[in-house]
Amino acid sequence: MARRTTIYDIAKELDITAASVSRALNNNPKISESTRKLVIETAAKMNYKQNKLALALRSGKSFNVGVIVPRIDSNFFASVIRGIEEELYGHKYNVIICQTHEDEKREFENINTLLNAQVDGILMSVSSISSQDFSVEIDRIIKRVVEKNVPLIFFDRKKSIEGVSSVTINDFEVSYLATKHLIEQGCTRIAHFKGNQFLEIFKNRFDGYRQALIDSGIEFDENYVIETRSTIVEGANAVKTLMKLKSPPDAIFSSGDFAALGAIQQLKSDGIRIPEDFCVVGFGNEPFTDFMELPMSTVNQVPLEMGKMAAKVFLERINKTGNLKASNQVVLTSELKIRESSLRAEVYK
Amino acid sequence: MARRTTIYDIAKELDITAASVSRALNNNPKISESTRKLVIETAAKMNYKQNKLALALRSGKSFNVGVIVPRIDSNFFASVIRGIEEELYGHKYNVIICQTHEDEKREFENINTLLNAQVDGILMSVSSISSQDFSVEIDRIIKRVVEKNVPLIFFDRKKSIEGVSSVTINDFEVSYLATKHLIEQGCTRIAHFKGNQFLEIFKNRFDGYRQALIDSGIEFDENYVIETRSTIVEGANAVKTLMKLKSPPDAIFSSGDFAALGAIQQLKSDGIRIPEDFCVVGFGNEPFTDFMELPMSTVNQVPLEMGKMAAKVFLERINKTGNLKASNQVVLTSELKIRESSLRAEVYK
Repeated sequence: MARRTTIYDIAKELDITAASVSRALNNNPKISESTRKLVIETAAKMNYKQNKLALALRSGKSFNVGVIVPRIDSNFFASVIRGIEEELYGHKYNVIICQTHEDEKREFENINTLLNAQVDGILMSVSSISSQDFSVEIDRIIKRVVEKNVPLIFFDRKKSIEGVSSVTINDFEVSYLATKHLIEQGCTRIAHFKGNQFLEIFKNRFDGYRQALIDSGIEFDENYVIETRSTIVEGANAVKTLMKLKSPPDAIFSSGDFAALGAIQQLKSDGIRIPEDFCVVGFGNEPFTDFMELPMSTVNQVPLEMGKMAAKVFLERINKTGNLKASNQVVLTSELKIRESSLRAEVYK
Repeated sequence: MARRTTIYDIAKELDITAASVSRALNNNPKISESTRKLVIETAAKMNYKQNKLALALRSGKSFNVGVIVPRIDSNFFASVIRGIEEELYGHKYNVIICQTHEDEKREFENINTLLNAQVDGILMSVSSISSQDFSVEIDRIIKRVVEKNVPLIFFDRKKSIEGVSSVTINDFEVSYLATKHLIEQGCTRIAHFKGNQFLEIFKNRFDGYRQALIDSGIEFDENYVIETRSTIVEGANAVKTLMKLKSPPDAIFSSGDFAALGAIQQLKSDGIRIPEDFCVVGFGNEPFTDFMELPMSTVNQVPLEMGKMAAKVFLERINKTGNLKASNQVVLTSELKIRESSLRAEVYK
C-alpha cells in the first residue's frame, strides 16, 4: 500500500509545524501569503491530496447526512429515504443509511458510527424500546448529538427531547377515522393490533381506536387488544388467539400492514369470509396491500412527503433559515385508503 | 458550539509538535515513555477526546464497511444487506448503506462518500450502465479503491476488474433451466424480458434462455426479446408490444420479478388465462411472488447466502486469511421455484 503524503510530510519538508501547513491549506488568515504559496506549491510537488474527511474534521462540514431506520425492507422507510434523498441531492448532500433491526444496541452503534463519519445531521426513526437499561445509553448519546449541535430530526417514530425536531403524521386522527369506518360498515366487535406502546405513534393509534369506540357508544374491551409486531406470523397468531374468545371480534384495525396480512391469511384459511363476515384495516399502505387478491384497506402515511419535510427541516437547521420554532414539530396529514377488505357489498351496492 | 480540544491545543500547551502528540497518543515507540505519560496526563486534564475517525485516519481502520446497491426497496438487495450485516456484526464491523437509484453519477459519489468516511471495505452491486462517458469516471475511482488497498467486493451485478472479488449466482444455468421448464410445459413461442446487456448477470440470463431454445430445437426469434427495466409499467408495456405480433408468444421468461408482475397484470386484463394459455416465470423471488392470487414461478437468488459470502470474502481480504485466489470469484447455486404461473394443470394433474 503506497503511503499517502500527509501534512506532516509537508511540514517536515518545509521545517514548519503541521498546524501551519494545515492552516495554510485551509486559507487561515493567520498564515502569511508567502508561506501559504510555498505550502501549496510543495503540497502539489509532493502529490499531496487533501482528504475531504480530514477537511471535514477541521471545517466541521462533510456534506454527508446520516439516516437511521429500523429496517430498509419496508416500503414505508424506503420511500421516506427516497424523499430525503430527493430533497437533499439538490443541495449537494450525500445520504448514508444505517438500519437497526429494532435493536437498541445497534441504534446506539449507528449513531456513534454516523458521528464518527462526521455527518452534518442525523435523520432517524427510533427503534422499538426493548430494554429500559439501554434506553439510558441512547438518551445519553442523543444528548451528545444535541450538544455537538448536529441537527437531529426524528421522523415517524419520535422521542420527545428538547432541541430535537420531528416530522410525524396525525396518527390519532387517522386511527379514529379507520375505526369509525369499521363501525359504519356494521362492525361492533372491533379488535386492535397495537404496537409497542413506548413509541408515541403506536400509542396514538391505540388512543384513536379507543376514542372512536367510546364516541360511538361501543364499550372498549381489553380482550380485543393484542400487542403484536407487524409481521405475518404475529398477525396470524393474534387472530388465532382472538377467535378463541367466547365472543370473537368481527373486525381488526391493525397498527401495521404485515400483521394485517397475516390476519387475513389466517382468517381465510379458517374459512371466514372477508369482508362479509369480517373486516380488516391495516396501516402503512405497503404496495402488496393494493395487488392482493382482495385489496386491503390501509393508511397512506405519505412517506415521500415525510422524507422531503424531514430533509427541509434539516436544511433549515443547518442553514439557520426559516422559522425554526414553527417547523420544530411538523405533523403531516395522512390518508385512509378504503379498499375491499373492509368495504361490505351489502352496504354499498 | 463548544470548541473541542485538539491535538494542536495539547501541542501548544506542552510546546511540542502536534505530530509528537499524535504519536504519543497512539503509543508510537519513537516517543519516550516520559513524554507519552506527560501527553496523556495533559490530554486528560484538557478533556481531550480522541476522535475515532481521526484515529481511523492515522491507523487506517474504522471498522465501518460500506455497501452500495442500486436500490434498497427490493427484497433481494435488502436481504443481501441483511446477510452482510449478520456476518459482519460478529466481527465488530458496522455497515453503512448507500443507494444509487441506477444512476452512475450517484454511484461515483457514493464511492467517494464511503472513501471519505474511511470505510475498511466496499461491497457493491453496480448500477445499470447509462452513459459510456461516466463509466470512465467509475472505472477510475474503482482503480483508486484497488490502489488504496481497500477491499472491494462485487455481488450480483459485477464488473470484471483485476483485484476485485465477486459473489454471483449461476445466472446462465438457472435461466437455461427456467426456459427448459417452459418448453416442458408445452410452450413453443417463449419471449424474454432482458435487462441491460452491459451487466453480466443480464447477459448471462439472456444467453441461458437462448441456449435452452437452441438445444431444444426451437428457433431463436429476436422479436420475442424485449429489453425492459424490471418495473410493473415496463413489463405491462412489453406485453402490449408482444401481443401485437403476428404470432404472439405463449410464455415469458422475465429477467426480473416486477416486469413479470406487470406482464401478468396486463395479460389478465386482456382476458388471457394463466397458465392455461400463457406461462410466466420471473426472476428474484420477491415476497409478493408467493402471495399473489396466482403464485409466480421465479428464481431464488439466495440473497442471504450471497450477503454472507460477500462479507466472508471481505473478512478474508482484510484479515489476509484463507485462500484468496480460490475465493476470488464465488458463484453460488440459485434455485428455480416452480409455482402456478407456469405449471399447467393438464400436464401435471
